[in-house]
Amino acid sequence: TKLAVVGAGAVGATLAYAALMRGAARTVALHDINAAKVEAEALDLQHGVQFVPQAEVIGSDDIAVCADADVVVVTAGAKQKPGQSRIDLAGATIGLMKNILPPLVEVAPNAVYIMVTNPVDVVTYASLKISGLPPQQLFGSGTVLDSSRLRYLIAEHCGVAVQNVHAYIAGEHGDSEIPLWDSASIGAVPLLEWNRSGEHGPLTEEVRATIAHEVANSAYRIIEGKGATNYAVGLAGTRIIEAVLNNEHSVLPVSSLLDDYYGIGDVCLSVPSIVGRRGIYDTLQIPLSDSEYDGLKKSADQLRSVARQFGF
Amino acid sequence: TKLAVVGAGAVGATLAYAALMRGAARTVALHDINAAKVEAEALDLQHGVQFVPQAEVIGSDDIAVCADADVVVVTAGAKQKPGQSRIDLAGATIGLMKNILPPLVEVAPNAVYIMVTNPVDVVTYASLKISGLPPQQLFGSGTVLDSSRLRYLIAEHCGVAVQNVHAYIAGEHGDSEIPLWDSASIGAVPLLEWNRSGEHGPLTEEVRATIAHEVANSAYRIIEGKGATNYAVGLAGTRIIEAVLNNEHSVLPVSSLLDDYYGIGDVCLSVPSIVGRRGIYDTLQIPLSDSEYDGLKKSADQLRSVARQFGF
Amino acid sequence: TKLAVVGAGAVGATLAYAALMRGAARTVALHDINAAKVEAEALDLQHGVQFVPQAEVIGSDDIAVCADADVVVVTAGAKQKPGQSRIDLAGATIGLMKNILPPLVEVAPNAVYIMVTNPVDVVTYASLKISGLPPQQLFGSGTVLDSSRLRYLIAEHCGVAVQNVHAYIAGEHGDSEIPLWDSASIGAVPLLEWNRSGEHGPLTEEVRATIAHEVANSAYRIIEGKGATNYAVGLAGTRIIEAVLNNEHSVLPVSSLLDDYYGIGDVCLSVPSIVGRRGIYDTLQIPLSDSEYDGLKKSADQLRSVARQFGF
Amino acid sequence: TKLAVVGAGAVGATLAYAALMRGAARTVALHDINAAKVEAEALDLQHGVQFVPQAEVIGSDDIAVCADADVVVVTAGAKQKPGQSRIDLAGATIGLMKNILPPLVEVAPNAVYIMVTNPVDVVTYASLKISGLPPQQLFGSGTVLDSSRLRYLIAEHCGVAVQNVHAYIAGEHGDSEIPLWDSASIGAVPLLEWNRSGEHGPLTEEVRATIAHEVANSAYRIIEGKGATNYAVGLAGTRIIEAVLNNEHSVLPVSSLLDDYYGIGDVCLSVPSIVGRRGIYDTLQIPLSDSEYDGLKKSADQLRSVARQFGF
Ligand SMILES: NC(=O)c1ccc[n+]([C@@H]2O[C@H](COP(=O)([O-])OP(=O)(O)OC[C@H]3O[C@@H](n4cnc5c(N)ncnc54)[C@H](O)[C@@H]3O)[C@@H](O)[C@H]2O)c1
Ligand SMILES: NC(=O)c1ccc[n+]([C@@H]2O[C@H](COP(=O)([O-])OP(=O)(O)OC[C@H]3O[C@@H](n4cnc5c(N)ncnc54)[C@H](O)[C@@H]3O)[C@@H](O)[C@H]2O)c1
Ligand SMILES: NC(=O)c1ccc[n+]([C@@H]2O[C@H](COP(=O)([O-])OP(=O)(O)OC[C@H]3O[C@@H](n4cnc5c(N)ncnc54)[C@H](O)[C@@H]3O)[C@@H](O)[C@H]2O)c1
Ligand SMILES: NC(=O)c1ccc[n+]([C@@H]2O[C@H](COP(=O)([O-])OP(=O)(O)OC[C@H]3O[C@@H](n4cnc5c(N)ncnc54)[C@H](O)[C@@H]3O)[C@@H](O)[C@H]2O)c1
Repeated sequence: TKLAVVGAGAVGATLAYAALMRGAARTVALHDINAAKVEAEALDLQHGVQFVPQAEVIGSDDIAVCADADVVVVTAGAKQKPGQSRIDLAGATIGLMKNILPPLVEVAPNAVYIMVTNPVDVVTYASLKISGLPPQQLFGSGTVLDSSRLRYLIAEHCGVAVQNVHAYIAGEHGDSEIPLWDSASIGAVPLLEWNRSGEHGPLTEEVRATIAHEVANSAYRIIEGKGATNYAVGLAGTRIIEAVLNNEHSVLPVSSLLDDYYGIGDVCLSVPSIVGRRGIYDTLQIPLSDSEYDGLKKSADQLRSVARQFGF
Repeated sequence: TKLAVVGAGAVGATLAYAALMRGAARTVALHDINAAKVEAEALDLQHGVQFVPQAEVIGSDDIAVCADADVVVVTAGAKQKPGQSRIDLAGATIGLMKNILPPLVEVAPNAVYIMVTNPVDVVTYASLKISGLPPQQLFGSGTVLDSSRLRYLIAEHCGVAVQNVHAYIAGEHGDSEIPLWDSASIGAVPLLEWNRSGEHGPLTEEVRATIAHEVANSAYRIIEGKGATNYAVGLAGTRIIEAVLNNEHSVLPVSSLLDDYYGIGDVCLSVPSIVGRRGIYDTLQIPLSDSEYDGLKKSADQLRSVARQFGF
Repeated sequence: TKLAVVGAGAVGATLAYAALMRGAARTVALHDINAAKVEAEALDLQHGVQFVPQAEVIGSDDIAVCADADVVVVTAGAKQKPGQSRIDLAGATIGLMKNILPPLVEVAPNAVYIMVTNPVDVVTYASLKISGLPPQQLFGSGTVLDSSRLRYLIAEHCGVAVQNVHAYIAGEHGDSEIPLWDSASIGAVPLLEWNRSGEHGPLTEEVRATIAHEVANSAYRIIEGKGATNYAVGLAGTRIIEAVLNNEHSVLPVSSLLDDYYGIGDVCLSVPSIVGRRGIYDTLQIPLSDSEYDGLKKSADQLRSVARQFGF
Repeated sequence: TKLAVVGAGAVGATLAYAALMRGAARTVALHDINAAKVEAEALDLQHGVQFVPQAEVIGSDDIAVCADADVVVVTAGAKQKPGQSRIDLAGATIGLMKNILPPLVEVAPNAVYIMVTNPVDVVTYASLKISGLPPQQLFGSGTVLDSSRLRYLIAEHCGVAVQNVHAYIAGEHGDSEIPLWDSASIGAVPLLEWNRSGEHGPLTEEVRATIAHEVANSAYRIIEGKGATNYAVGLAGTRIIEAVLNNEHSVLPVSSLLDDYYGIGDVCLSVPSIVGRRGIYDTLQIPLSDSEYDGLKKSADQLRSVARQFGF
């Protein structure tokens, strides 16, 4: 199995590291336009090969390094330039995808594509149009990371292992994202009925608001403190890669092209979806509260209108 | 960290193997009254040490081999003799615990005790009385294995990864066990509302009945086919051991002394519980349907009456 | 990736268990002529799937279950019958291979074949002839297990991690096997020059003789104590499977058809060999002492003459 | 078990990430004087906890966060300032250790200390004097990383798995380091006798010179291309931590205070050493060629004279 990572920046290189440590793929290929950087990252990763499951690491500024990949993760990003607005950045990033995707799809036509570059939902939507790939085969990492943050905070509050928290963030990977409290559970206890006594007690509206706020803002806090986020997203991306390469049929909140999800369509955003070797197999019909549904619809409208701005 | 396994039969030795492969403990001690067997099992395990995380394996018919263990798993069993009824077997097993536990608790007073020997719920109840240990510190492996079987069958039916199935079996580890369908979920979809189209469709009453029947009977089928069950129980036991030694606060349906669980008390049976370094931290108040509650109560009454038969 | 295990006895089922726990293959197929047993083993393994890397387990008495496997491990054995000598047993086992291999190779023509059934070297030689497969593609598990035992004992004596002991057993998997002391090392210290002070001191001729004796006899001791060996061989087999499926090019002492190994040929026995996705890539020219060379030659002569007895 | 990492820069944070992914410790504490950064790194790591073995991550600019650690890794570094020579940098770094170590040893008196900050050998020597800790308990990561690079290149050349290459770099972690070719082996073949035919042929003097040069210079190449090295060193550090916390007695080329190593003493440099729970148990007497011995002696003299410059 071969994993190709396009963009060997903070996110791309860390993701390659995590994938190597987990033995997610037999070959890990890094591609970046910065030749010196991509070779340095590949070298640094190669020197660690002794300590991880057997794998081959290659890096190059030639896109051919991605040939015949089984999974391609796109983390290449356009840097925000002075005077450039967030929407301008989205435009620049979409422009980047127009350059990157056609030659990439040519060398790796059968890969499953996982988009990570932000704004990930809009980039995924545009990339589907640009590449012409079927929606099953190209999707965004979406809110896998956000859901992981949510679960961490719930687990801390409730005093249970994070693996026992079953909760998802849906919608945009960004400010309009929605925690799906209504369908969340801890063990087999509905989250809204959680009633342990003491410090690990009920998740009151106040507690939930604090947690939701922290999830939505932690990326900002991290970027302020260290300039980028890379560790958790590296693991979240690796998790998706594993679901694909091991054909796990795992439920993951990735950003995919919705058709008629409770009436929502023609937009890429995250809802819990079944992910396996061929990409996305299905989206799950999660029961939503009214306000969750409203949030999701608003998130969709917003994302759709951004896409429209760039002619998609 | 030190794991001691008492009884190096099919279950005990396989559990030690699984624990070694997962690196669950630094020292694994096997104890059995059959000296030749316990030494052979220890030797066979030692020869595999090259292929697993660093660990030390020791085996002896002297109980002192368990000294200062952090976790003790009890799998020592009395074999059913011709003409002996199941209840007689329970009696013999309880007799065995009267011999085993006092010297064991003496050499490993601070260990968390996990009972596996059947009938596990009654044995756990009796062992609490015999040992005088606090209920937090001694419990049974309960329905961790049964729940794993349940999840496997649900996952197969629904076409999702087993890790995304959140469902528990409660009650007796045995014929009166109860699948908790009402609180079960797949991803964030309530199991009873699962509605994928095609072969992976709804879990109708009929489907659920088939699954429940298969779960309750698979142990019999396996024992018929191969004489014992050991692989899955070895992993289930290891899972509990990890929850303890890593202080995970994981939710696991272990068999513990209930005090007032929806009014049920003075009996050991399985409900989802929080397990960590000191043993059991809490039981979770799962919302139960009426029939689930009735089933649990009946299971409790039965188990209590068996215990009474042996003077507990 | 698909692993097929032929023979779901003590060795085959344990090997499948170890392979599942290590995530060595995505599909694990068990085949045995005993339908009830193979289904029971498959069920028991399936119930543990929740606790291991995602995988599918299937079991059947129909050889078709092995179709399109990437690796096939053969552990099917003929039981020794009263009055049957060891040589008779070899004959019966070879007869078994004549039945098993042709249909097996038909359904899994591209698999790498790893023979485990004893006497493994003779069985491997005969199987090459029976199957017509190229020597690269079919080989025996050989002395991987014996070498692991040797390393364990050296590590114990020297007070170092077993992973730092680099030593091999060559020749027959059996009584005429030869520990290659001359080329062995611990860290980068030649084993024969090891001179730590105290209890972990030099490996004198006496110490080496004791260790060699223990290695050669431990299988007998284990079989006496527990009726079979299964745990270490399950891990040793899994190690070989990983080397193949991950295309590791690992050095492992497997039993392969020698052509001109220091003049030795037309026999299957174990020397350190490079193992990867296509099977055996090369054998390593280990520097041998005179007595090691003599031992190897004698081992070869013996194995060749046994093969001749059965018309190979 | 608790791991404390002092200095949450590129190396420290990546090492914490690797340690978390491998489940090396139950608690990972990060300490840095840059409060915003250390909190951001801790947050980013926490958000990945869902995907790794259960662990707790804490981060603070208060040294108390390291209290009662079992292992402390020191990666805090003084940045080279304009006009500052390399020797000046060494002086600044030693100054840093004078500030860091006393309060650190006070809160974590029983930890094993692993120094990573460069120039690591001199820093280790000075830190022993500053802290007053016994030489067994404080040592440097030394040439574990360099040896890993060496093995990677040898493995590539020979076409074997890197795990089968047994070779060490000794001496300074830096320009005067010495590859120990004479005692190196591949499988059980002495490296100098390796004679596979074709592209994977003998390691001629020319090949060895190229490899040695690449090892010594790769850090420079990586730093040029990406500004720092972090991935391989993160894994190398984690490897040492595991050897300590699992009490592995593994052979690792760490930098320790030599007493009379072939006559060399009163200096910290790397030779293969046995590492376990109490730190360093022994150094191995590797047979050295004359030129290897000369190199080691020269390396020692150089390191000693640098230490002297700073009054140690
Ligand atoms: N979806 C998520 O959950 C998530 C989380 C974190 C970061 N991100 C996003 O990931 C992206 C990357 O972040 P980063 O911190 O790694 O940025 P970075 O600047 O460190 O790395 C970006 C890399 O892309 C390379 N690149 C630019 N143009 C390229 C091209 N045409 N082909 C190949 N490579 C090219 C650059 O050389 C650079 O190395 C950003 O858009 C960021 O917002 C997404
Ligand atoms: N709870 C579960 O989920 C579960 C699942 C499978 C099996 N089990 C139970 O586990 C028990 C063991 O099953 P098994 O298949 O390993 O049986 P087994 O007969 O193979 O092994 C039992 C071992 O206990 C040893 N033993 C007997 N008395 C002892 C004593 N006083 N001290 C130490 N050792 C002693 C025996 O020598 C034997 O080796 C049985 O009660 C079985 O029903 C429970
Ligand atoms: N090479 C080694 O290092 C090593 C180590 C241990 C055991 N072994 C050998 O492995 C073999 C298996 O040992 P075991 O303990 O598992 O024996 P076992 O008797 O438990 O199992 C053998 C299985 O083979 C099955 N079988 C018989 N004929 C078959 C056929 N035609 N097709 C499919 N399955 C068939 C039997 O039904 C049985 O389940 C023995 O030959 C043993 O000596 C080798
Ligand atoms: N030994 C090896 O094999 C090896 C390999 C790579 C790097 N290194 C060395 O590791 C060190 C760290 O490298 P880096 O790339 O992480 O540097 P960095 O600049 O990214 O990080 C250093 C961190 O130390 C912190 N720090 C400074 N003073 C401190 C104090 N008093 N207390 C706590 N924290 C303090 C800084 O705030 C900074 O975050 C360097 O000396 C580097 O040369 C060693």
